[in-house]
Amino acid sequence: MSISLEELQLAARNHGMPLEALRHEITPLGLHYLLTHYDIPLVDAALWRLTVSGERSLELSLDDLRARETVTMPVTMECAGNGRAQLEPHVVSQPWLVEAVGTAEWTGTPLAPLLAEAGVGEDALEVVFTGLDRGVEGGVEQLYERSLALADAAGGLLAWGCNGEPLPPQHGFPLRLVVPDWYGMTSVKWLQRITVVSEPFDGYQMVTGYRLRRDEDDPGTPVTRIEPRSLMVPPGIPDFMTRRRFLPEGRVRLEGRAWSGWGPIERVELSVDGRAWQPASVGDPPGPSAWAPWWMDWDATAGEHELRVRATDATGRRQPDAPPWNVGGYANNVVQRIAVTVTRFER
Amino acid sequence: MSISLEELQLAARNHGMPLEALRHEITPLGLHYLLTHYDIPLVDAALWRLTVSGERSLELSLDDLRARETVTMPVTMECAGNGRAQLEPHVVSQPWLVEAVGTAEWTGTPLAPLLAEAGVGEDALEVVFTGLDRGVEGGVEQLYERSLALADAAGGLLAWGCNGEPLPPQHGFPLRLVVPDWYGMTSVKWLQRITVVSEPFDGYQMVTGYRLRRDEDDPGTPVTRIEPRSLMVPPGIPDFMTRRRFLPEGRVRLEGRAWSGWGPIERVELSVDGRAWQPASVGDPPGPSAWAPWWMDWDATAGEHELRVRATDATGRRQPDAPPWNVGGYANNVVQRIAVTVTRFER
Repeated sequence: MSISLEELQLAARNHGMPLEALRHEITPLGLHYLLTHYDIPLVDAALWRLTVSGERSLELSLDDLRARETVTMPVTMECAGNGRAQLEPHVVSQPWLVEAVGTAEWTGTPLAPLLAEAGVGEDALEVVFTGLDRGVEGGVEQLYERSLALADAAGGLLAWGCNGEPLPPQHGFPLRLVVPDWYGMTSVKWLQRITVVSEPFDGYQMVTGYRLRRDEDDPGTPVTRIEPRSLMVPPGIPDFMTRRRFLPEGRVRLEGRAWSGWGPIERVELSVDGRAWQPASVGDPPGPSAWAPWWMDWDATAGEHELRVRATDATGRRQPDAPPWNVGGYANNVVQRIAVTVTRFER
Repeated sequence: MSISLEELQLAARNHGMPLEALRHEITPLGLHYLLTHYDIPLVDAALWRLTVSGERSLELSLDDLRARETVTMPVTMECAGNGRAQLEPHVVSQPWLVEAVGTAEWTGTPLAPLLAEAGVGEDALEVVFTGLDRGVEGGVEQLYERSLALADAAGGLLAWGCNGEPLPPQHGFPLRLVVPDWYGMTSVKWLQRITVVSEPFDGYQMVTGYRLRRDEDDPGTPVTRIEPRSLMVPPGIPDFMTRRRFLPEGRVRLEGRAWSGWGPIERVELSVDGRAWQPASVGDPPGPSAWAPWWMDWDATAGEHELRVRATDATGRRQPDAPPWNVGGYANNVVQRIAVTVTRFER
């Protein structure tokens, strides 16, 4: 595998969560993954207004929004392109390995009452969310925009806070959408407009981007909810350059977190050196749309080993052994593999 | 240019500052560059102690440190490997383009009085700073450790705060060293020990890493202070994949920031399409060890253009037109170049 200058430019801007940060139930600010399509806008919150257009049009300041019903919820968010760099044939875009994930406590106001206030007509079909971030993609100059069916939008939160702080610029200051259980592209940042529409929205990010396509001629199906995934804190210590892991012989606690946007995590299993899958202990997630902790003790013997972990959710969805390929390289939730070198104590 | 899987693993963990964040005088938390040699340690601050060994040995809790003289200072920090990915022949390590920089307001206590309290003997030569982060590098298992000559250590700050918040885990919680004007490898994170020594410290990060070497046989010279550099906020809007910039015809404000660890910034100059260098306006930095803002208006005409910017500091050091190559790929402060496409207004 090799990565081009263009992909490196993206990798240098968009950062993943180092896997040792899986130790934190709530990802500390600055460690949550970040994917920005264009530039991070600089917004003057005092001048900023959100326009909500339904049967009526509302214009709201940040203070107006903060005066409404306020909730805080932990949400595990993952980029739809997570796992892309592991795919063969190679897919050119932001080259994520497995680290495009994080869990934040988002504070904001539920979207549904605001839509009701703006008036949702009988012919209403979707809600379009428009950000302030502008760029060129696939030759089309555009604002970042995505839509949701009315029923899916009902679960959305309009968030101005992250981990108890005002939203940082890179996470959508002053206001972003958070849609629990869906891949991150849905949670539009730097919101400026919310529009109820009666026709399917045909913007670039709906019709061209974020679709599961077998080949270039396949119109494909939309990327929606997060497929199940489990990740392990790599045990032991790393080699700086290769990131190979080294640990001493003896009992070691393997641990990590697992999540799915389709239902609760039902099972996490580990396999050492391709042997039979063994169940790990699974704890309670901090909320219905957040990852669950898991752990298992392993008696490490000297030598080279490969650890694998996979999750299964309550709907029966399970991580596959081979990566599911598609044109855009989306939703690759292949089983995680970690190579470790176990050394005698004297090392 | 192409990047290997190993380099991508590093790029996915260690993130740069997206250049549009140059608009902020103080880099918001989470946008400052980050380079972690091994793993980010998880530290229980209640159990953590700092040992300072001179003629006497002190053991200090975080509360002990916070009870001392407290200062806050803005410091521009840059990774010594910034610019590495632009080098030919290719140097394999963390593949930074130009974005490994940031300016934070660090809060902590000056190092010098603490060293005096521990007792600096007449034969004292250097101070060794030892972190909690352990890994393997160049085949050597080690804690991350660096030393400074006594005179250079005098300017150090022991910081527990960043931008008014407790140090985040990734920036060295609970305590890190901050050495203004020096490349970032000097500012050891997750400090556990400070030791006054009477012999030159020969740890890996002093003798093998972070040296300017012409070839593998050259013992080289140490990487120390930050070479001058200026960076521009890329004007206009980007293409998602190529990051090419698009802007309309007409007057546009070009802006950015410039810094040097050797002295104040004296001059920032721009060149369009290789024509003569023109001086930009330079403002005051927020502190003596922080970047200075600069700006210049440009009358953009339709077509393809290349913008270049370079800084000169008060010692006469100036950014070179060609990258200065060395084995480790350190301190490449070549002039920044940005390609832009200027379009007619109708685009």
